[in-house]
Amino acid sequence: MENGEYSLGELAVRFGMQLRGDPDLRVARVATLLGADSGTISFLANPRYRRQLGATRATAVILTEEDSRDCPVAALIDPNPYLAYARIASMLHRAQPATAGIHASAVVSADAQLAATVTIGPLAVVEAGVQLDDGVYVGPGCILQAGASIGAHTRLTARVSVAGAVRIGRRCIVQPGAVIGYDGFGFAADRGAWVKVPQVGRVRIGDDVEIGANTSIDCGAIDDTVIENGVKLDNQIQVGHNVTIGEHTAIAACTGISGSTTIGRRCMIGGMVGFAGHLTIADDVAITGCSLVSASIRRPGSYSSSMPTQESRIWRRMVANLRRLAKQEHG
Amino acid sequence: MENGEYSLGELAVRFGMQLRGDPDLRVARVATLLGADSGTISFLANPRYRRQLGATRATAVILTEEDSRDCPVAALIDPNPYLAYARIASMLHRAQPATAGIHASAVVSADAQLAATVTIGPLAVVEAGVQLDDGVYVGPGCILQAGASIGAHTRLTARVSVAGAVRIGRRCIVQPGAVIGYDGFGFAADRGAWVKVPQVGRVRIGDDVEIGANTSIDCGAIDDTVIENGVKLDNQIQVGHNVTIGEHTAIAACTGISGSTTIGRRCMIGGMVGFAGHLTIADDVAITGCSLVSASIRRPGSYSSSMPTQESRIWRRMVANLRRLAKQEHG
Amino acid sequence: MENGEYSLGELAVRFGMQLRGDPDLRVARVATLLGADSGTISFLANPRYRRQLGATRATAVILTEEDSRDCPVAALIDPNPYLAYARIASMLHRAQPATAGIHASAVVSADAQLAATVTIGPLAVVEAGVQLDDGVYVGPGCILQAGASIGAHTRLTARVSVAGAVRIGRRCIVQPGAVIGYDGFGFAADRGAWVKVPQVGRVRIGDDVEIGANTSIDCGAIDDTVIENGVKLDNQIQVGHNVTIGEHTAIAACTGISGSTTIGRRCMIGGMVGFAGHLTIADDVAITGCSLVSASIRRPGSYSSSMPTQESRIWRRMVANLRRLAKQEHG
Repeated sequence: MENGEYSLGELAVRFGMQLRGDPDLRVARVATLLGADSGTISFLANPRYRRQLGATRATAVILTEEDSRDCPVAALIDPNPYLAYARIASMLHRAQPATAGIHASAVVSADAQLAATVTIGPLAVVEAGVQLDDGVYVGPGCILQAGASIGAHTRLTARVSVAGAVRIGRRCIVQPGAVIGYDGFGFAADRGAWVKVPQVGRVRIGDDVEIGANTSIDCGAIDDTVIENGVKLDNQIQVGHNVTIGEHTAIAACTGISGSTTIGRRCMIGGMVGFAGHLTIADDVAITGCSLVSASIRRPGSYSSSMPTQESRIWRRMVANLRRLAKQEHG
Repeated sequence: MENGEYSLGELAVRFGMQLRGDPDLRVARVATLLGADSGTISFLANPRYRRQLGATRATAVILTEEDSRDCPVAALIDPNPYLAYARIASMLHRAQPATAGIHASAVVSADAQLAATVTIGPLAVVEAGVQLDDGVYVGPGCILQAGASIGAHTRLTARVSVAGAVRIGRRCIVQPGAVIGYDGFGFAADRGAWVKVPQVGRVRIGDDVEIGANTSIDCGAIDDTVIENGVKLDNQIQVGHNVTIGEHTAIAACTGISGSTTIGRRCMIGGMVGFAGHLTIADDVAITGCSLVSASIRRPGSYSSSMPTQESRIWRRMVANLRRLAKQEHG
Repeated sequence: MENGEYSLGELAVRFGMQLRGDPDLRVARVATLLGADSGTISFLANPRYRRQLGATRATAVILTEEDSRDCPVAALIDPNPYLAYARIASMLHRAQPATAGIHASAVVSADAQLAATVTIGPLAVVEAGVQLDDGVYVGPGCILQAGASIGAHTRLTARVSVAGAVRIGRRCIVQPGAVIGYDGFGFAADRGAWVKVPQVGRVRIGDDVEIGANTSIDCGAIDDTVIENGVKLDNQIQVGHNVTIGEHTAIAACTGISGSTTIGRRCMIGGMVGFAGHLTIADDVAITGCSLVSASIRRPGSYSSSMPTQESRIWRRMVANLRRLAKQEHG
């Protein structure tokens, strides 16, 4: 990261925020309310942290009109402080642009199609027929297999594996350990053993998608696995073959989605949620963490089956009650 | 993949299926019922997709006698359409055989024992004492540590890590990110801290085993971790030290198996199932996704503890009831 | 591993254990009670295995005074046999020290700061500004990005990815597929889409920490993600941004910890546990496997919400009862 430095006046003008305080004060870094010191800008969005506001030593805080009354330092006022923070932080902490070029230790096929502005890091493998558009960054240890295609300004940070039948869109970010486009789990039963079902579909990933560390996305069995524009996938997510995830849906870590399930647009899925296969989930569905989705969900709303932790001795009673009821009533 | 092309007559004869339709029609690719066009073969196995049959534009469909009555195109009739499909698809979509040889960028010890027909991809590492049998494929970025042994025609697709004390059988497939044979989680408590217990066992994997992306299989603590013939492991599965998984058992993604648990033969384990340690699971047990197995299972059958998702407001009542009951009755 | 060989007399003296048997008998390897033969030493700690004691052919067994009465071979008596076993096994099965040096195929920046005694394996990448202290082992395929710092005698076994803003302490062990210090999951909502929040914090990992295969630890969003001394993390664990894990806490595989949650010291967390974000967990808390922690836990003790598996037909009744109650009473 390299830091910019801006005056509060510049920030207020650029982002259309009201400023209470000295417009000539300058900030160069972000900080939490409690971790802040001079030259930093902080924010208050989660009410959980409101009690920390009075003690902050930040140069300025981004917050709502209402919270600004208790702000002991300069205030940048915005109805959505977290969004304003995201934009300002992106300006202050800009990733250093990589110098385009191919590291001498990378193994790049002469039959790959590379835009002049791509960067390929040390010990990356780029096989024949791979297409890398303008400004693509392929970090150290990435493997792009024959035929894969990566859209402009997409960044594979390091050690990402992409199979041949994969198309990734523009401005995506993929973290280390992600595995995209390899065989899904398809087997036909044959008298107590299993016969492999060839997995011949592709993976199509839209623009502005983020894919977390150690996340796996299987290729389609026949048709494609599809991740639409703006989808955000956290770490260690499993996406089975022929899953579709609709635009701008965000999914937290460790969630698993079984094959042929379709998730709608703008859904918010908690961590460690399990989806059975062949389901359809409507747009604008929220699912709390650690739930199991075993049937389709047709209407927007919030859904749960996550059981909150109790003291173990109380929990054991709850389970025993449930068992006894099932015995009594159905015998 | 390279495609073959076959007449329906050839397919019917080779696989012993009844054909209703023109035996000279030819197919070269598989397709879903709805995605099919001319020259493709599709199948109907899951009743969920029966309503799509009438609209298909496939050249032929593999289905049961009963479903064949409603088939608008040529029908290949089989009592197990999915199995027949698996076999035909494998014939149509054959993986291109890799050209045997060692890529110049691979780091291969002079003390490895390599059959003449092995393929080692770019930037793979093969340490001393590794044994690779006939036709083994070691994809780009794989790491085989000193002493590992890989059976004939096994395929490590890319970026697989295999520790030294690992023996993998014949015709296995291992996907990227799989980690096989490294230390299990063994620590002895010592006045509030932990002392590492050396993990000195091996991993023995049978023939025809498939191991998914980012799956981890720990070496044994003392005795071995054992995966028997024909086992199929999906992505992101955790197999603890000294686990044994019996022949032809299939386990869906994100399941975790704690140390020293033995799972029987022909079991079908759903996704995101958790197994406590030191359990014994009988042969022919099915466990639905997102269940917790905390006690041994002695008899074949279907077992569950997965709680299906409800609307959050209803779910909160269910949890509150359970809590209240536990208080009332035992309070 | 290379083996040492010791007499029972030497072991008894060195570890302060009482010996019943011939002090001149020698052992060179560890074994399970049932797998033991001459020249091996075994142990009995878990009562589950007590019935195997009578049949053992080990040269000696480490066990408690009470269990020693039934021991058919030489007995080394200790009140904590598993801990004594851990120490003796570590002496018998010592990892062969790697020869310090940099493999010719590794890509090491001239601007990295390397102690003379470091080992860097084949095809590893060490970028500018990386600091490796005495005796650090960087296994094959590891990637250390610009600025990362690794403490003395830490061992990255193979294919570990470490981002630049990461400090790992001394004597740590990190297994393959671990991803440390890349972006956490931070996005601000903007009219149905997501704006990335820059992740500018670091990861600080203490001494004597073990990190399992395919485990992911995100960098902090602003402040740091912190793993304190002596923490043991199993495979496939997800640690979100700004999590803190206190000294000597042990966490089993597949657990996920959401952002900004603080876990205390000496906790024991089972496998596949889910933690919501922004929670505080006290010291000395135990949580059973497959539980969901959705609220802070202020007092030491054992906590659960894991539902044990039933036969599926009984389980369906239990769920149906729970649903019916929720309808009747609140209707």
